[in-house]
Amino acid sequence: MKARLGPLPYIYPIPITLVGANVEGRPNFETIGDTGLAGIDPPLVFVSSHRDHYTNLGILASGTFSINFPTTAMLARVDFCGTVSGRDADKSALFEVFYGDTGTAPMIAECPVNLECRLLQQFCIRHRQVFIGEVLQCFAGEEFVHMDGGRPRFVDLPTLDPILYALDNQYYRVGARIGTGYQEAEKWKGDAT
Amino acid sequence: MKARLGPLPYIYPIPITLVGANVEGRPNFETIGDTGLAGIDPPLVFVSSHRDHYTNLGILASGTFSINFPTTAMLARVDFCGTVSGRDADKSALFEVFYGDTGTAPMIAECPVNLECRLLQQFCIRHRQVFIGEVLQCFAGEEFVHMDGGRPRFVDLPTLDPILYALDNQYYRVGARIGTGYQEAEKWKGDAT
Repeated sequence: MKARLGPLPYIYPIPITLVGANVEGRPNFETIGDTGLAGIDPPLVFVSSHRDHYTNLGILASGTFSINFPTTAMLARVDFCGTVSGRDADKSALFEVFYGDTGTAPMIAECPVNLECRLLQQFCIRHRQVFIGEVLQCFAGEEFVHMDGGRPRFVDLPTLDPILYALDNQYYRVGARIGTGYQEAEKWKGDAT
Repeated sequence: MKARLGPLPYIYPIPITLVGANVEGRPNFETIGDTGLAGIDPPLVFVSSHRDHYTNLGILASGTFSINFPTTAMLARVDFCGTVSGRDADKSALFEVFYGDTGTAPMIAECPVNLECRLLQQFCIRHRQVFIGEVLQCFAGEEFVHMDGGRPRFVDLPTLDPILYALDNQYYRVGARIGTGYQEAEKWKGDAT
């Protein structure tokens, strides 16, 4: 028997990211779980932010932004970034910042992976501002990736050590590897015969 | 020093979901990691699917769809659903299906949580079809939630036991709880003084 809980968008798990943009001349970072993959080829990402959020101003003005993936060791700073607005606090010194070719999307050196993005499309749904971005460049710490036949091969998720979140308002780490894409299906086909 | 890996949308972790719609009179489910939260109030979700995918036809025709969160115990079936199209295989018998008030968004009984959604907006970016949905109803197995002062309180993520994915093509489970939202920030403010 299922309980009906009303119109609750209980998506889980949520990847915790720091979305970066320069606003009024300085780097600002917003903690966001409302983000995700929107396509691999073309390389698309999706970010949804409250319409009043300070970071939005920088994304709209520059047409660029970054998505940065913090580690669990950065949890206190990441949570802090989600509790104060750039309008009220200068967050530019919280992290070591670097730039890519656009020169306008601030990225966080301490994060293992950073995506430098170009704003492709944006629209509002009620008080939400939705951004669709195209990834121009993926940056990764050299200890987290090696090239294998011309293609990047990343270390496993537990080593990248991202922060997960759920709408129970709790943070989690990643657990053990349990399988490989497009190979587990074989086990099901076996069951079905 | 950061390596430049090109335009790779290395978002992680990715939540693995089964997106459901009735197509040509029968339930179909598509394994999708290209989904996420787009807002809590209003309750918005986001799904991106290749323009040719079979499930899209049902979403567009009915204006409804579901997002279902499988457990790691369902991994082989979930992976299977991502390897075959509903055009070539009848996936309606893979799961026990139930419906909510719309009557057109098939949901999976074995999944701890199901979101019944109404299509709010859709557009294409190159060969991607993006759907923004509003959650009409969240269903949860009664063993996974209890009411606390009129609000639902879910069990923790490891008990919901969702499947994570990353673009290393590996599946993972969720690990341990590491903190509470809007409380970890206090530790940082402590460091900063």
